[in-house]
Amino acid sequence: MKKTRVCELLGIEYPIIQGGMSLIANAELASAVSNAGGLGIISPNAGEPDWGKVAENLRSQIRKARSLTDKPFGVNFSIQLIGEDRSLIDIAIEEGVRAVTMGAGSPALHTSYLKEHGVRVLHVVASVRHAKGAEKNGVDAVIAEGYESGGINSPDELTTFVLIPQVVDAVSIPVVAAGGIADARGFAAALALGAEGVQMGTRFIATHECIANQNYKNAIVAASDTSTVITGRGSVPIRGLKSELTRHIQEAENAGASSEKLLTVPSPESADAAVQQGDTVRDGVICGAVAGMIDGIVSAGDVVRSIVEGYDRIVAGL
Amino acid sequence: MKKTRVCELLGIEYPIIQGGMSLIANAELASAVSNAGGLGIISPNAGEPDWGKVAENLRSQIRKARSLTDKPFGVNFSIQLIGEDRSLIDIAIEEGVRAVTMGAGSPALHTSYLKEHGVRVLHVVASVRHAKGAEKNGVDAVIAEGYESGGINSPDELTTFVLIPQVVDAVSIPVVAAGGIADARGFAAALALGAEGVQMGTRFIATHECIANQNYKNAIVAASDTSTVITGRGSVPIRGLKSELTRHIQEAENAGASSEKLLTVPSPESADAAVQQGDTVRDGVICGAVAGMIDGIVSAGDVVRSIVEGYDRIVAGL
Repeated sequence: MKKTRVCELLGIEYPIIQGGMSLIANAELASAVSNAGGLGIISPNAGEPDWGKVAENLRSQIRKARSLTDKPFGVNFSIQLIGEDRSLIDIAIEEGVRAVTMGAGSPALHTSYLKEHGVRVLHVVASVRHAKGAEKNGVDAVIAEGYESGGINSPDELTTFVLIPQVVDAVSIPVVAAGGIADARGFAAALALGAEGVQMGTRFIATHECIANQNYKNAIVAASDTSTVITGRGSVPIRGLKSELTRHIQEAENAGASSEKLLTVPSPESADAAVQQGDTVRDGVICGAVAGMIDGIVSAGDVVRSIVEGYDRIVAGL
Repeated sequence: MKKTRVCELLGIEYPIIQGGMSLIANAELASAVSNAGGLGIISPNAGEPDWGKVAENLRSQIRKARSLTDKPFGVNFSIQLIGEDRSLIDIAIEEGVRAVTMGAGSPALHTSYLKEHGVRVLHVVASVRHAKGAEKNGVDAVIAEGYESGGINSPDELTTFVLIPQVVDAVSIPVVAAGGIADARGFAAALALGAEGVQMGTRFIATHECIANQNYKNAIVAASDTSTVITGRGSVPIRGLKSELTRHIQEAENAGASSEKLLTVPSPESADAAVQQGDTVRDGVICGAVAGMIDGIVSAGDVVRSIVEGYDRIVAGL
């Protein structure tokens, strides 16, 4: 596999980045991905639903990851969660983290500060306009996230297939493709579209190292091609598995319920309940449209290795 | 470029199929695609909004195409439009057409009949279940059409990126990818995902040979990444360019308007008006999410040739 600019930027062997899934992207998962040659990512609140304890949790997650790998790993910051507060960013810098993935907010807020401290910044975008804005604000790469993605989604609904080439044409920095990718075929397709790497979230949830509840992982494995749905259109679109909860929300939406009423459903609490307690029927299982392609719980390292091995075979067949 | 099973099946040089767009997929367009080595497709009502004249129109379109190319071309039948009536199918058979693309209805209806008469059948599907059903009914290949597609869309919303690999895994017949493809990058990505060919609609509208109104073509060329939208969710989802009309529909949908009320908007008449008369502001311009990637009106043959030429360069770079 050829090295791309994403490999050089991050000092990694393969341009495979793990999504920094809130609550569940823990040190064990991140270090396993990094040890296999990708870039593991820690979520500050991994395993810690109490945001009041997020600072010490982040520090301990970083230190744990450092004890498990001597390769680079990163941290994900949701700008929606941290706002203008740099205390968590400062912890990452103090602890020697050299790369962050950021999203759900403006790249104008923290990019310069991070770059002054030698940290590589990858910013999540979902349209050409946002990609250009991120580049203008000095980010090192954009993670272009398609409509297939799990969790909070863009109302623009640009799919990976049409988003990646248009972002590649619009910016000169490297583009990482996210949304709909779970295997070597998706990786090869993303690179054919012009991406120089991929980010995968859902695929890495269904791994031994991820701390998501077993029911949560099992629900992803059991999912078929038509199992995910977008709720919250008109307010905050979120993709997850169809459930009693999403049916309830869709009925309310179809009846014209106001955005305000729907804004907090599924709530952070319900998502947390699914992740931590495994109540996947009552609560929302947030995951990407790629869930139907995931048919087993494997080790995170094997996810990376199977892509690396499969890639050469796919390219040879083209 | 290696030959795929789609090339063998259809007797064509490159596995590039032109979408059989209702009203506008005319003999000149189809023959240009076929002459360039792809498979051109005629729409029975191309240039003829009066369905009462569709039989003679189809016959004359086939004969015109035959006069313009000695290569294979096909006809598209919307099962929603023809129902159980085989009179148009019989015309295609009489006139020596050897391949049809079909969709918007059950493959159980006409597949056996067509195959008994030596016609290759490609059926449009948008989920694994429909792909398996089409295979079971004896179709020669499925055209797996992603959420990116223009016109009538599936409520399942499976994007090309996640649809293609899952359909490829589910059936043993060849899979043609449709939705979001306009250039060599998309073609290469589709093949990386396991497809053995592509179908493109929107890209072929913006060609010199297509009879769509110039305003319609210009609107596609002017489109950006965020220019298309789905309306008719909950009834018949349709993708087209954002317009006054789609804004009006979306407002009604958000207010909880009934499916019945929205079912005929945009109506066939309004789509026809856009295609024929070019009123792209008042009426709907139906096209795929890939419109933002199309930046000029070219010849249909050049569309095919640019993909063939670009493909080797892309694969060499992987």
